[in-house]
Amino acid sequence: MKIAVIGAVAAGTSAAAKARRTNKEAEIVVFEKGIDISYAGCGLPYYISDIIEERDQLLAFTAQTFADKYGVELRTEHEVKEIDPAKKMIYYDHLAESKKGGYEYDKLIIATGATAIEPPFPGLELNNIFTLRSVNSADKIKAAVNSGQVKKATIIGAGLIGLEMAEAFSERGIEVTVVELQEQVLPQFSPEMAELVAEHLEAKGVKLILGDGVDHFAGEKELAKVVTASGKEIEADLALLSIGIKAETELAQKAGIEVGESGAIKVNQKLETNLKDIYAAGDCAESTDLLTNKPVWIPLGSTANKQGRTAGENAAGGDAKHYGILKTGITKIFDLTAATTGLTLEEAEAAGIDAFEVKIKARNHAGYYPGAAPIHLKGVFEKESGVIVGAEVIGGSGSDKRIDVLATAIYNRMTADELFQVDLAYAPPYSSPKDPAAVLGMVAAKKL
Amino acid sequence: MKIAVIGAVAAGTSAAAKARRTNKEAEIVVFEKGIDISYAGCGLPYYISDIIEERDQLLAFTAQTFADKYGVELRTEHEVKEIDPAKKMIYYDHLAESKKGGYEYDKLIIATGATAIEPPFPGLELNNIFTLRSVNSADKIKAAVNSGQVKKATIIGAGLIGLEMAEAFSERGIEVTVVELQEQVLPQFSPEMAELVAEHLEAKGVKLILGDGVDHFAGEKELAKVVTASGKEIEADLALLSIGIKAETELAQKAGIEVGESGAIKVNQKLETNLKDIYAAGDCAESTDLLTNKPVWIPLGSTANKQGRTAGENAAGGDAKHYGILKTGITKIFDLTAATTGLTLEEAEAAGIDAFEVKIKARNHAGYYPGAAPIHLKGVFEKESGVIVGAEVIGGSGSDKRIDVLATAIYNRMTADELFQVDLAYAPPYSSPKDPAAVLGMVAAKKL
Repeated sequence: MKIAVIGAVAAGTSAAAKARRTNKEAEIVVFEKGIDISYAGCGLPYYISDIIEERDQLLAFTAQTFADKYGVELRTEHEVKEIDPAKKMIYYDHLAESKKGGYEYDKLIIATGATAIEPPFPGLELNNIFTLRSVNSADKIKAAVNSGQVKKATIIGAGLIGLEMAEAFSERGIEVTVVELQEQVLPQFSPEMAELVAEHLEAKGVKLILGDGVDHFAGEKELAKVVTASGKEIEADLALLSIGIKAETELAQKAGIEVGESGAIKVNQKLETNLKDIYAAGDCAESTDLLTNKPVWIPLGSTANKQGRTAGENAAGGDAKHYGILKTGITKIFDLTAATTGLTLEEAEAAGIDAFEVKIKARNHAGYYPGAAPIHLKGVFEKESGVIVGAEVIGGSGSDKRIDVLATAIYNRMTADELFQVDLAYAPPYSSPKDPAAVLGMVAAKKL
Repeated sequence: MKIAVIGAVAAGTSAAAKARRTNKEAEIVVFEKGIDISYAGCGLPYYISDIIEERDQLLAFTAQTFADKYGVELRTEHEVKEIDPAKKMIYYDHLAESKKGGYEYDKLIIATGATAIEPPFPGLELNNIFTLRSVNSADKIKAAVNSGQVKKATIIGAGLIGLEMAEAFSERGIEVTVVELQEQVLPQFSPEMAELVAEHLEAKGVKLILGDGVDHFAGEKELAKVVTASGKEIEADLALLSIGIKAETELAQKAGIEVGESGAIKVNQKLETNLKDIYAAGDCAESTDLLTNKPVWIPLGSTANKQGRTAGENAAGGDAKHYGILKTGITKIFDLTAATTGLTLEEAEAAGIDAFEVKIKARNHAGYYPGAAPIHLKGVFEKESGVIVGAEVIGGSGSDKRIDVLATAIYNRMTADELFQVDLAYAPPYSSPKDPAAVLGMVAAKKL
């Protein structure tokens, strides 16, 4: 059996490794356009901030160490240009050697990932305008910062990566302005929770311009100003476009592989596409929202990893399922953690769930124990059943714990009362006799 | 309606507060033997270590502030000596004024707590031999430590409190020896996990004597030595008896209230005792093990709080249930967190569950992000169903998160595969793309 994998970051390498574990005999060949494989995309902001000093720390494997460990062939600088599903062939360019070639597969896993969106803003060709996606792109940003020439940076987009980069630039002594089209930062959060993050950013010296977008970039060769749609002129030596990413599906679509409304490849729970023997996984593929049972595209490393594993197992002859996701996300923004899982009230209502929300403020642990910090929790509960369907947590240390407990609660359709009753661990350095997650359940149960 | 509550620490105050919220009209009177109410029993080691500097920080309320806030009458220094269920009377001694009195109740909540076990070891009358249970007892220990005369302390018992006190004394510059009858520290943990804690204690300079008990205390007026059953002589200026606690049930038993095999008061899910209109809650009462459905007695502040609340609501005319517990426990021991929930393999087998265990070591978060530390996780899974029924977590920061996720998983009878699939939050400062809890599920699923 011959298994081809296109892409060697999170999903591709997970797929190849799991395929090998599932099938000792198969020939497994991974085609990767770039040179770096299996890099920590989520670690890039920390590489730029110098929290991670060495580039190598971002790379779990080199092509060689991965190939040796898993007994697969890893062809870097191989860009796959065409899939021919009828002939079960893929055709590639070997970039380094300017050669072309083909490979006949029995099973194919597409893990082409996603790329940063770069709208054709006037002035985009100026120096020092970046996107952040690969280690290469991070190298370029880090080099610019290391040059010492960057005093002011403007970040376009206040999503997870945009805000992580606001922290990273600030850590490097750069004055940061964030421009966001929506009226709030972190658009996946409810406005009142996002407001807590905005306040924290401003307290840390980050300037926010909300409800405004880029009109153009101004400067002569070097970027000098970001000019917004409303006419604001922001001085900037560097701009980071962090508007969002789009699934890399061109190759798949040309081969007749179906793409969903999200723009990512449609897959079932086995990670099969509409074409026989072709799987898709990771940032290029959709998942299922476990609460609405609808396709959803939330490209994250954790999902890519799991999907890759499932696709690899199935391609190699196994029978695995990726159930779906809760859209759980988390980010560290200076001293604050912001995390979300499940549905917002708006999303619940859009999905036909009659819901209400509860918001509480609690301490991460006993008030008398050092390091006590406030945590804001919001829960979305179904009115009739009292089942929790969504949560947001914003606060100090221990916020990550509560989102994971709440994600597990949502996965299990726990009621508000059950959330209060579940026997969470208490000792003063870790919690209070009534854990914040339990208090959220308690307050919601009262409203039922 | 007249509601009497006996005891004003965790369960008693929770009961009184919830009774008031449930019933605005009732007369609620709380009888407390001591002066301090609603104190943080779990915070006492940190008071002695000076992490908590002020005694007042341990007290959530004074009798007056509590009475004012909840509109209840709080009678401190009132020791209830007798319950007459037929006449619905309780009789008390008012200790401060050497008076006696009686109170007629409609509903009675017993929250008498538990007391430290002090076997009649020879030499127990010597100075500087303590138990730790109330703020008063902590005051005495703290005074001894503050005197500067204590250079060497011996702790009898290596349970949660014993080990927390080992840290507290060490923090105060005292040389600590811990003597434990069992062959391991933390007897509620499996031996191999407890061994990790033992190694950490020894690395921190704490001496451990396992599989040995106290024969007698030696000295003249002042304690000089602890002599063990095996004949070891341990020089000691201070000894702390931390062998365990027993439920305070004498009053209840004299009134005909049934006590379970654990020695604590039998209650149903409504916290009713066998006698009409009498409830029990907190450290004096049993709970139900949610995994075996059998009565269990694990006296902890978190359970006391919830039980008190349930008893208070029911006594005041409500209809609440306390489902039961998973025996979740956690403790900080120097730089290590040790936590447990559900059943050990031994307990599972004793309960007739055909189970197996899985042990993994993982990092708390991305290895390249600062503060990465190992976490050891053990899971106990039912063979046939793959359902997780128990877990232990020992390691660095983030261990508390994993035990709470696993407790929530156990509560919900999640399978190993579901534990792998659940969408936990990932970003480098918080986790890895595959969270340690998910890896535990993944490894267990492979074994099925």
